[in-house]
Amino acid sequence: MDPKHLIEAVQSQMPAKRWEHTLGVMETSVRLAKAYGCDPDKAYVAAILHDVVKYWPVQAQGDVIRKNGLQPDLLDYDKEIWHAHAGAFVARRDYGIDDEEVLDAIRYHTTGREKMTMLEKVVCLADYIEPGRDFPGVHNIREIAEHSVEKALLAAFDGTVLFLVEKGKKVYPLTILARNGLIEEIKQQSQGGN
Amino acid sequence: MDPKHLIEAVQSQMPAKRWEHTLGVMETSVRLAKAYGCDPDKAYVAAILHDVVKYWPVQAQGDVIRKNGLQPDLLDYDKEIWHAHAGAFVARRDYGIDDEEVLDAIRYHTTGREKMTMLEKVVCLADYIEPGRDFPGVHNIREIAEHSVEKALLAAFDGTVLFLVEKGKKVYPLTILARNGLIEEIKQQSQGGN
Repeated sequence: MDPKHLIEAVQSQMPAKRWEHTLGVMETSVRLAKAYGCDPDKAYVAAILHDVVKYWPVQAQGDVIRKNGLQPDLLDYDKEIWHAHAGAFVARRDYGIDDEEVLDAIRYHTTGREKMTMLEKVVCLADYIEPGRDFPGVHNIREIAEHSVEKALLAAFDGTVLFLVEKGKKVYPLTILARNGLIEEIKQQSQGGN
Repeated sequence: MDPKHLIEAVQSQMPAKRWEHTLGVMETSVRLAKAYGCDPDKAYVAAILHDVVKYWPVQAQGDVIRKNGLQPDLLDYDKEIWHAHAGAFVARRDYGIDDEEVLDAIRYHTTGREKMTMLEKVVCLADYIEPGRDFPGVHNIREIAEHSVEKALLAAFDGTVLFLVEKGKKVYPLTILARNGLIEEIKQQSQGGN
């Protein structure tokens, strides 16, 4: 599917207001991809599709996970994180995306994971800081993103963990592994003088 | 080894001031064990030994983990959590403890784990709230411990996670699994009317 038809097809899956968010993630992902040296075209496609099933009924998202054996432990956690794994599956099945890097960037855009690729970091961070986002601390994360994608994403995950702990909600273990991995990377970069 | 000799042998492994902490954990573990229906004698022995290697040089604690293949990923995390796993190994090797429940209560007293036994919860919580402890929020956790060991331990782990995130330190994944497990247990208790 060419980008124009892909955009039209995905846009039809969500309310107009939330399509604005996807446009913001597309713009920010491409900008970050250019700044941090990964493929802007892949970032663009992953961004178009990152929320493709987010406005499906939650039951339908759960069914995609359940029926296709996608990390079934997701179903024990907040519904907010289901759409990323279900979305990667649907991106392949219904939109013909077969680039594993793009699919992983969709799959891990909400939880992160240990040892994230630059493309995964870029799309995940863009989802936090696209221009339409407005939550406490977002300005600070945008500023950090100007010089370090790892430090910005760490600050974003820190915010998510603090929010979940304050709300008494479970934290998906991959997010902790993602955060731990970023701390290690930042330490190694500082030791390497980068 | 009878309790009197065990106490003497363990006491010799640490500074006098920190032995006071162990006495506090012994007293609180026994009280919690009686309140929450697990074996106070096992809680007593686990409490005596919980910090048995804590005042060994860190290198020696790491060697016990490394040379005996005890969860080697521990070595990628804060040294503060090494003594629990190393301590369980030493409790068996040097003090003849062969009760697996007691050894698990020593092993998981710092990190916790998914699906903790009541004995593990009691010793872990006692370590947070024994009378000598004085950190922000400890009074609140002591109050909660009067009616729910799970809610008190959740509050204690919440404090640990918030502290680590604020300090920019990695969180050991087992602690997140422990916290998630407690949230599930508390939910089930409330659904069951307990």
